[in-house]
Amino acid sequence: QSSVQTYGLFDVSAGQFQNAGATKVRRLDSGNLSTSYLGFKGTEDLGGGLRANFALETFFLADTGGASRVPGVDVFWARNAWVGLSGDFGALKLGRAGPPLFVSTLIFNAFGDSFGYSPSIRQYYNAPYGTPLIGDSGWNNAITYSTPNVGGVSANLMMQLGEGAATAKGRNVGANVLYFGGPLALTGAWQQVKAQGVLGRGIAAFPGFQKQDAYQFGASYDFGVVKLFGQYGVIKTDAFTDVKVTNAHLSASVPIGNGAVLASYGHSKIDTAGVANDPVSKMLTVGYDHFLSKRTDVYAIYMNDKYTRLSTGNTFAVGIRHKF
Amino acid sequence: QSSVQTYGLFDVSAGQFQNAGATKVRRLDSGNLSTSYLGFKGTEDLGGGLRANFALETFFLADTGGASRVPGVDVFWARNAWVGLSGDFGALKLGRAGPPLFVSTLIFNAFGDSFGYSPSIRQYYNAPYGTPLIGDSGWNNAITYSTPNVGGVSANLMMQLGEGAATAKGRNVGANVLYFGGPLALTGAWQQVKAQGVLGRGIAAFPGFQKQDAYQFGASYDFGVVKLFGQYGVIKTDAFTDVKVTNAHLSASVPIGNGAVLASYGHSKIDTAGVANDPVSKMLTVGYDHFLSKRTDVYAIYMNDKYTRLSTGNTFAVGIRHKF
Amino acid sequence: QSSVQTYGLFDVSAGQFQNAGATKVRRLDSGNLSTSYLGFKGTEDLGGGLRANFALETFFLADTGGASRVPGVDVFWARNAWVGLSGDFGALKLGRAGPPLFVSTLIFNAFGDSFGYSPSIRQYYNAPYGTPLIGDSGWNNAITYSTPNVGGVSANLMMQLGEGAATAKGRNVGANVLYFGGPLALTGAWQQVKAQGVLGRGIAAFPGFQKQDAYQFGASYDFGVVKLFGQYGVIKTDAFTDVKVTNAHLSASVPIGNGAVLASYGHSKIDTAGVANDPVSKMLTVGYDHFLSKRTDVYAIYMNDKYTRLSTGNTFAVGIRHKF
Repeated sequence: QSSVQTYGLFDVSAGQFQNAGATKVRRLDSGNLSTSYLGFKGTEDLGGGLRANFALETFFLADTGGASRVPGVDVFWARNAWVGLSGDFGALKLGRAGPPLFVSTLIFNAFGDSFGYSPSIRQYYNAPYGTPLIGDSGWNNAITYSTPNVGGVSANLMMQLGEGAATAKGRNVGANVLYFGGPLALTGAWQQVKAQGVLGRGIAAFPGFQKQDAYQFGASYDFGVVKLFGQYGVIKTDAFTDVKVTNAHLSASVPIGNGAVLASYGHSKIDTAGVANDPVSKMLTVGYDHFLSKRTDVYAIYMNDKYTRLSTGNTFAVGIRHKF
Repeated sequence: QSSVQTYGLFDVSAGQFQNAGATKVRRLDSGNLSTSYLGFKGTEDLGGGLRANFALETFFLADTGGASRVPGVDVFWARNAWVGLSGDFGALKLGRAGPPLFVSTLIFNAFGDSFGYSPSIRQYYNAPYGTPLIGDSGWNNAITYSTPNVGGVSANLMMQLGEGAATAKGRNVGANVLYFGGPLALTGAWQQVKAQGVLGRGIAAFPGFQKQDAYQFGASYDFGVVKLFGQYGVIKTDAFTDVKVTNAHLSASVPIGNGAVLASYGHSKIDTAGVANDPVSKMLTVGYDHFLSKRTDVYAIYMNDKYTRLSTGNTFAVGIRHKF
Repeated sequence: QSSVQTYGLFDVSAGQFQNAGATKVRRLDSGNLSTSYLGFKGTEDLGGGLRANFALETFFLADTGGASRVPGVDVFWARNAWVGLSGDFGALKLGRAGPPLFVSTLIFNAFGDSFGYSPSIRQYYNAPYGTPLIGDSGWNNAITYSTPNVGGVSANLMMQLGEGAATAKGRNVGANVLYFGGPLALTGAWQQVKAQGVLGRGIAAFPGFQKQDAYQFGASYDFGVVKLFGQYGVIKTDAFTDVKVTNAHLSASVPIGNGAVLASYGHSKIDTAGVANDPVSKMLTVGYDHFLSKRTDVYAIYMNDKYTRLSTGNTFAVGIRHKF
């Protein structure tokens, strides 16, 4: 009678890690290629095409046994915690889920949702890299509506309620449009954030914060011998001192046997009002991902991390990823 | 070989929420009609009618992804964490479980264990509403014995060990008797609390606290076109300043198609020794609960919340509840 | 398609507990005979004898519903959080797991991994008993290699990376060799710890700490009517004031019907450099463990706990243990 499914992903890599301006550290790390998590989900057929669906997913640190992304700070069920209905009308989710801009960011680059190795994810979402994207890669208290797929086109609309909290200035809203047609895929995404997320860059980092608007365009084309990805996006933060970040990403995936050579380059310009010599973050990652099965792959990564006026960081890592 | 079952419940509602004396907040909320949780349970046949049983259940917040009822304060496995044996002699549970008075409270009102909408649960257990019930809806370190069902009558006895902690004055004990016979059901419940619970009103709120005794009687009768519920209970807190709370609840459930109209009224008088003009809490909730399936329902709720000398609160909410 | 298995163990005992020098407390306790836990594991056949494996296991407190061994201090997935590959070459694990010395300690005594009742586990791992073993019974950031079993002989090698943390002085390493041949089993284990564990005795307790070396030898022989176990080990802590602990353990298991009488004695001498009248810990535990099934047993325990210049502690407890 119970229809719950248990699933998840382990990702562990070992190597020498070094961000721009930082010292080298040899370590074992969790979740660099895909964030490790454990999930429970289910779907119930209600008849007439209507379904009830849910997902409850917790990140974990496979290296230390810690819960969530940052133990003691992050919420436990940070990856997904929503229930909803789906049918001919599309799908409705109530609860915590990933915003549309994040979904577009991960689909249109060769390293997916890799917080450790994807220049796209790092330059949009990973605070140490100077990016001011606020609001986390999961939004609380959210209502998400996804349209049906019509001729390859679908859209997602998400609203995070402000809930009247003292630290909230109002709602967050996000939306994207996705097109998949044969080898070609396209996306446009936008979000406006006014409320603090659980993790990620904090609003407090921007005195006089009013709101942050971000948009992004992405495209990919699969030539067979190589799949190319391109992304362009802008993040504008409205505060006492405005900050505008302009991101450009190019990446490629080249299938070889049971694996693929992956490469991705990201250029992120951080333009702070009234500041001369704005810094630029340049990130290049190349890797080889070898699939032992559909569910299990091993990989080797090199990442070069440059940031204006900081020493260059070099990361070498090998890892294993296992879906269950 | 493994016999563990994974199960649980999602409950999310959205609307305008307002307690007596409080401002209106529009928000998405988890667990108002039933507290959201994830559980693992199992039973093993040991032969001769004897069984080993266990339950391990964690509350979660489906709106924010937070663990437990109050992240960082509540224990993780707050709903149930016990192992035990059952057989002809009845059932024995060792560990954390719900006390008998709580079980009687939730069975004999139309809104069940709804911490968000049930006047019964709110006026007995939800501290903001002036009720002094101490000891949480789950008791730690407890030994629970349940009798077999004899002619529709069963009883539960629970003892929470004091464990010699500095904050513990001794044991908590609780008991109830339940009768189910055709359309009629009856209960009597009692508990005496000396030790602090994890959540709920704290002992520190009562300087010179000695003990708290509570009793409750409940009845329900199913006429077919309507099921009526009645509850009467008294909570006496023995401290420097004694407090006596007298609760009366009436509720009804009227089946309509695949759903039911629910209504419940609660009157709670808080009588503090030596204080004139004792406050009264009056709470009225009406709602419609529509079942999409046995496991999934959607609902609409209106709640009116009055408390002496405070402005009246009005709550309007719609929600979805999904068991898995 | 998903191959994840949910499993675990409940252990609850009730009684009067008293450590040497401490007052008596009557309480319900979790995890004294085996630490209660919930786990998720899986294995995937990759072909050619190669397998991908993982384990993700969280301790819990069955008496209070708390997560992990010490809520708020311990990591959530403290028992195991690793992914790896196994095959003809042996097995490789990446992540948090139990060190070889701990595995040898629990195999070669009659009370297994009992943190509550096993003199071996308590005198090596349980800090209140004066033992200076550092590094926890689970190691973070670890790479573990296990050899194939060759003629009954196998070995495990574990390295915990230092990861350049300010509190880490370098790597931890551990190894053991195990032999199982008919009624005879033998082990030798060693570890060197430089980095702080999550729980257990802290490095800060040893001013000027440099490193801690520990070794242990164990043997067991099953005569049929009785299985005997012996262990001898030394823990040397290199600090401003060196500490040397010498442990000797003897235990026996006598099968009776569907159960066994268990007895274990431990002698632990704590030799602190420059200190006269070094204390000795002497611990004796006897018990009867009755199996209701392969998965469920009930037990009665008496433990006598002596420590130089402290009053003697006496513990009487009965409990139930259920594997699922």
